[in-house]
Amino acid sequence: MDSPAFADSVATIGIPLCAVAGILFGLFLWVRVSKIKVRGAGALRSENGREYLLAEEQRGEQEIEEKAADLQTAIQEGAQSFLFTEYKYVGIFMSIFSVFIFVLLASEDGFQTKWKKDDQGILRAPAVYNGAFSTIAFIVGAVTSIVSGYLGMMIATYANARTALEARKGVAPAFMAAFRSGAVMGFILAGNALLVLFILLLIFRKVYGDDWEGLYEAITGYGLGGSSIALFGRVGGGIYTKAADVGADLVGKVEKDIPEDDPRNPAVIADNVGDNVGDIAGMGADLFGSFAESTCAALVVTSVSSLGANHLWVSMCYPLLISGAGILVCILTALIATDLKPAKVISEIESTLKIQLVVSTLLMTPAALVISLGALPKEFTGIFADDPERIVKNWHMFFCVASGLWGGLVIGLVTEYYTSNRFTPVQDVADACRTGPATDIIFGLALGYKSAIIPCIIIAICIYVGFSLAHMFGIACAALGMLSTLATCLAIDAYGPISDNAGGIAEMAAMGEDIRERTDALDAAGNTTAAIGKGFAIGSAALVSLALFGAYVTRAGISIADSSILDPEVFAGLLVGAMLPYWFSAMTMKSVGKAALSMVEEVRHQFNTIPGLMEGTARPDYRRCVEISTQASISEMVPPGCLVMGTPIVVGTLFGVRTLAGVLAGALVSGVQMAVSMSNTGGAWDNAKKYVEAGASEHARELGGKGSDCHKAAVIGDTVGDPLKDTSGPSLNILIKLMAVESLVFAPFFLAHTKDGLLFQFFK
Amino acid sequence: MDSPAFADSVATIGIPLCAVAGILFGLFLWVRVSKIKVRGAGALRSENGREYLLAEEQRGEQEIEEKAADLQTAIQEGAQSFLFTEYKYVGIFMSIFSVFIFVLLASEDGFQTKWKKDDQGILRAPAVYNGAFSTIAFIVGAVTSIVSGYLGMMIATYANARTALEARKGVAPAFMAAFRSGAVMGFILAGNALLVLFILLLIFRKVYGDDWEGLYEAITGYGLGGSSIALFGRVGGGIYTKAADVGADLVGKVEKDIPEDDPRNPAVIADNVGDNVGDIAGMGADLFGSFAESTCAALVVTSVSSLGANHLWVSMCYPLLISGAGILVCILTALIATDLKPAKVISEIESTLKIQLVVSTLLMTPAALVISLGALPKEFTGIFADDPERIVKNWHMFFCVASGLWGGLVIGLVTEYYTSNRFTPVQDVADACRTGPATDIIFGLALGYKSAIIPCIIIAICIYVGFSLAHMFGIACAALGMLSTLATCLAIDAYGPISDNAGGIAEMAAMGEDIRERTDALDAAGNTTAAIGKGFAIGSAALVSLALFGAYVTRAGISIADSSILDPEVFAGLLVGAMLPYWFSAMTMKSVGKAALSMVEEVRHQFNTIPGLMEGTARPDYRRCVEISTQASISEMVPPGCLVMGTPIVVGTLFGVRTLAGVLAGALVSGVQMAVSMSNTGGAWDNAKKYVEAGASEHARELGGKGSDCHKAAVIGDTVGDPLKDTSGPSLNILIKLMAVESLVFAPFFLAHTKDGLLFQFFK
Repeated sequence: MDSPAFADSVATIGIPLCAVAGILFGLFLWVRVSKIKVRGAGALRSENGREYLLAEEQRGEQEIEEKAADLQTAIQEGAQSFLFTEYKYVGIFMSIFSVFIFVLLASEDGFQTKWKKDDQGILRAPAVYNGAFSTIAFIVGAVTSIVSGYLGMMIATYANARTALEARKGVAPAFMAAFRSGAVMGFILAGNALLVLFILLLIFRKVYGDDWEGLYEAITGYGLGGSSIALFGRVGGGIYTKAADVGADLVGKVEKDIPEDDPRNPAVIADNVGDNVGDIAGMGADLFGSFAESTCAALVVTSVSSLGANHLWVSMCYPLLISGAGILVCILTALIATDLKPAKVISEIESTLKIQLVVSTLLMTPAALVISLGALPKEFTGIFADDPERIVKNWHMFFCVASGLWGGLVIGLVTEYYTSNRFTPVQDVADACRTGPATDIIFGLALGYKSAIIPCIIIAICIYVGFSLAHMFGIACAALGMLSTLATCLAIDAYGPISDNAGGIAEMAAMGEDIRERTDALDAAGNTTAAIGKGFAIGSAALVSLALFGAYVTRAGISIADSSILDPEVFAGLLVGAMLPYWFSAMTMKSVGKAALSMVEEVRHQFNTIPGLMEGTARPDYRRCVEISTQASISEMVPPGCLVMGTPIVVGTLFGVRTLAGVLAGALVSGVQMAVSMSNTGGAWDNAKKYVEAGASEHARELGGKGSDCHKAAVIGDTVGDPLKDTSGPSLNILIKLMAVESLVFAPFFLAHTKDGLLFQFFK
Repeated sequence: MDSPAFADSVATIGIPLCAVAGILFGLFLWVRVSKIKVRGAGALRSENGREYLLAEEQRGEQEIEEKAADLQTAIQEGAQSFLFTEYKYVGIFMSIFSVFIFVLLASEDGFQTKWKKDDQGILRAPAVYNGAFSTIAFIVGAVTSIVSGYLGMMIATYANARTALEARKGVAPAFMAAFRSGAVMGFILAGNALLVLFILLLIFRKVYGDDWEGLYEAITGYGLGGSSIALFGRVGGGIYTKAADVGADLVGKVEKDIPEDDPRNPAVIADNVGDNVGDIAGMGADLFGSFAESTCAALVVTSVSSLGANHLWVSMCYPLLISGAGILVCILTALIATDLKPAKVISEIESTLKIQLVVSTLLMTPAALVISLGALPKEFTGIFADDPERIVKNWHMFFCVASGLWGGLVIGLVTEYYTSNRFTPVQDVADACRTGPATDIIFGLALGYKSAIIPCIIIAICIYVGFSLAHMFGIACAALGMLSTLATCLAIDAYGPISDNAGGIAEMAAMGEDIRERTDALDAAGNTTAAIGKGFAIGSAALVSLALFGAYVTRAGISIADSSILDPEVFAGLLVGAMLPYWFSAMTMKSVGKAALSMVEEVRHQFNTIPGLMEGTARPDYRRCVEISTQASISEMVPPGCLVMGTPIVVGTLFGVRTLAGVLAGALVSGVQMAVSMSNTGGAWDNAKKYVEAGASEHARELGGKGSDCHKAAVIGDTVGDPLKDTSGPSLNILIKLMAVESLVFAPFFLAHTKDGLLFQFFK
């Protein structure tokens, strides 16, 4: 076996450099955003600002700015209050789960602490080490995810008022503020995730010495930690955001007939907090989990290959190098939007964001080729469990990464096509509003179903390519390829809620119709990018789950012949697994409904008991609504959380490892379709509503604009879409990933004690 | 090997006797229904009728009856016109497909006509025989399905006016008329299906002599024929019925503000025709297809077992004996509703129908036990392809049949729970209408998702039991167990559209509010039974598809190791297969939307161009709307039809037999969930609307009744649910069954020419 072209130092020096570069770039953007002053006249020095000042009184400006600053503080406090409450429960969960992991893994050889030599003379760490270091990795992964999410929330809530204020000067500065802030989140998260994992790897390497298999098994804890936080972020956050949104809409728009984001509505701050909670913290935790899990899965697989056996450090770091190069590529790409070719008018917003996706993919392709040829030896073996001698070539891995990378782009573009109101699908949905909400909903559902076709075929191609060329290592690398442009994806995704909040603040601070129009245009593009982000998230989640599933099957000792779809246990599992996304979605949708109704009661109560609220002379109790959303999200996430965490344990214990394999595969293939169609249906309804409101084309104006029957139908569709696109859909990513990683962790336990299932073994 | 307890004559005499008994019982019920006279005073001789006559003028009565007779004729003509147009296209399709089947199968050994002896000295028929007799079986199956569907439609359209007229006397006689008519359909279809298949078997036996394998392979054509007609019935019929329904509602209720079933609405006859087309002809063809396919699958599997090798005629006829006994059981059960304990008041309707399900299941259980112990030898072998020596006991088969039988009952009861407005789920959905259509729809979708949990687990249990005890023979027998109460299921299912039509006729003939209330109560129960019927249909479709899938895998030469979910081709296929129900549903929902819009245009056109139409002085052109629905259903069913028929051929040819196996399994597991949740969501919305309208409880009255905002929200939910429950949901049965049976038919072709796929073989 030949050596790779790159020296080990390329990994040891290059990876942390890339990560640090990402973090520094994020901080640099933060500094630029912070130059926008929320209070005082400093923000109005540009030419546009001066023109604008001529038309308005100086005092009015001052008031607006103070109001915006107030609102921003309220949103920030709400967000912090949610996060701190959530972290309290996360803390309890993590403490218990840490003990669980340690005991389970450490008990494997009866808590021995002696190192033993294996057949090849390599010193192997005892199970206590694996238990301890897996637990450490788990905690580090969880904490990294929490810190990244917290920072993202802070910058987002820091940026929303600034974006709104910049919108007074024009679309261009507002877009810049929102985009830069989103990018802060993207780069800091991507940099942090990579840096922490790499440092952990260096430390573990010192401890484990030559026992690379043990080292990389312990590191999987990092993925599990990241994904556990995602459960709280996606499910809890998703319920939070939509309870507030739907609750605010039901009383505000339907009963009181006040506009969206009206400051008299007590739930309005909770609604704005929710946008950040779901799409910033939730999305961040979700993608962080995918990144961590796919990297760990790749490392585990390669540790038993010839790469691991020959201690090729730079080759083992191949997945990390891809992610590192991705950060550099994303920095270059971000400069296009921030400096080279920023959006100047409304019509350029969407294309500027799309260019981010396309350019990052284009630049990443040669980078991936160079890394594949340089960091890997020409040929290596030990990747295919059932055929260890089968040769994998370094350029094979390039194709795996490239399939994920380009697959992600295509999924993004298809999602854009189905959810942007510049294209016919959404316009058709808007058109269907003519005949009322029923046709709006029928066409929207059909759109969502249809939008699953291409993403699903793309994922199938990635799976086929990755699987055929390099088995589960190929799948993991395809996932990493898709996630290599993580920073860019997160940037354009986080841009959405920032713009949404900016719109809310503009409305609440009474900034005027023209400003609101600008923020609406930013927000419409944000809906599309949010849908694109969700497309990436589910695509990568599918690949990651499959990689984890593959690792589970190997660890659970399931042979190829035992995992046939003609095995009764596997097939029954497949069917039940395919049902789980439905069960899970029923829970999350019902939760949103219930939580929204308790929000409705509180809002009604405030309108009835606070004198002068409707007239705008008294201030509502925003804090109470924030508390309700927070409490609801925490308590309502328990049943779906239990379904996710409990299913692998119950199935594995009672029905055995083969049934569990079927369940995982079934949940994966069924969940992907559902998640994609839910996200896109919801995004399409939202943008169909915005299309009718904006009236930017002849056709749109025909539909009647705000307040028309057509618009009312569109609002109904939008409300139905809220829990679909922001709660149930994205939460399915967690369902499929977390079940897979949990099965993987418990696989040795099942194998030892309940291989055929406690219940099924009576039938044998 | 010991002999079975029953002599061969039990099968030879018993099966046709049961079938004839079913047909005669159906005819007997028809005669009883025909005693209700549509014109003249003969119908009003009962005591109730006399009371009623005292309150109304004799002349008014006469007018109402004439009007009802007119409407019945219009509906009957519309139904016939649809059926004849459809049969024209069916004829073309069948001619082409017959040639296709013949050439494909006959060409296997170059059109030789010589019989050859095999290793065991048995004379084997040449491929030309298989081609010819498969084609004959195909045509016979298709024609039987067509005739059964036609008869069902005729009796349904014969019964609707009679039911409406009987409603003037009270709920009891109206219920009796509707139930008896539904039972006519059920018994004639079940009897016919069994009798024709048995006669075909006797004829083929004469031709094939000792070549039982050839005999039973040829007989599978019967299943394919039945299922092909179901494609037209379910997809075409589903589009027909909902194009008319949604179109009529959109103009009538939304634009013109006239009530449902108003005779001024030009689409109203098409709407009433549609109820019969979808739920009578479509459902009949669907269940007939399931019955035929599962029987054929069972026969094919057993023909290569020790039962076939030892020429145990009565054992081979085991599946037919189960179906025959089922007919007798259903006759006994039907007598409960028609004579022993008929429903007398509104509250008894649903329980009377439920008793049908429960009693038929109870009675069938000992019958299945007796047949299993009597018709089968104590032990037999050759059922498990991978372990031919494995022993199957006769009581094993009882458990297979019983699991399907009881599974069907549980699915029925769960469906009732989720779709009847006597239980909390539908009441919760109705309650959600308070806050508008959005919450109605969110809660309805959540209900549908949730309602898939238990049916799915039940099907998984049936699969596990059947698969473990007797492999694919077990699955086929579980399907037959579920279908053994076919006549009862069809009876209570057909009851639905008859009541629905009766309500329409009552409204159109201006029979008065109290009559309409009675027919609405019948109809509400009918919505629930329709949902139950759909539950049975999808449950049995899932089992049938799996049995066919198993036969495909064997015929395509896919080994256990080659069908692992860890095979890249299988897994990629699984993912794409799981996507197909989404693609298919997107098509069918869009088709309904499009067809409904062209109906809207025609209705608007008639309102604008026919003077006096709105005032009720001129008659609309009903025929034109019937034509539009007919044309739309035929042309719109082409794309989804091509997807179903084309997918196995494209995938099998380009991507090989293993990918196709994955696709079939994926479509099956994903389609089941979707079909169940769509049917139940739609049924729940419909009954939530009826719950608000009827105002039968304190809670229901609180919601506001007809015309309230709450009711308007419920109407929107109902309209969204229409295509879900009557087009997309039930059509998915056809998707999964037809793809499986088609793959089975073409398996020898794929195996010979494109085993690894024309496209994939370049990558090897």
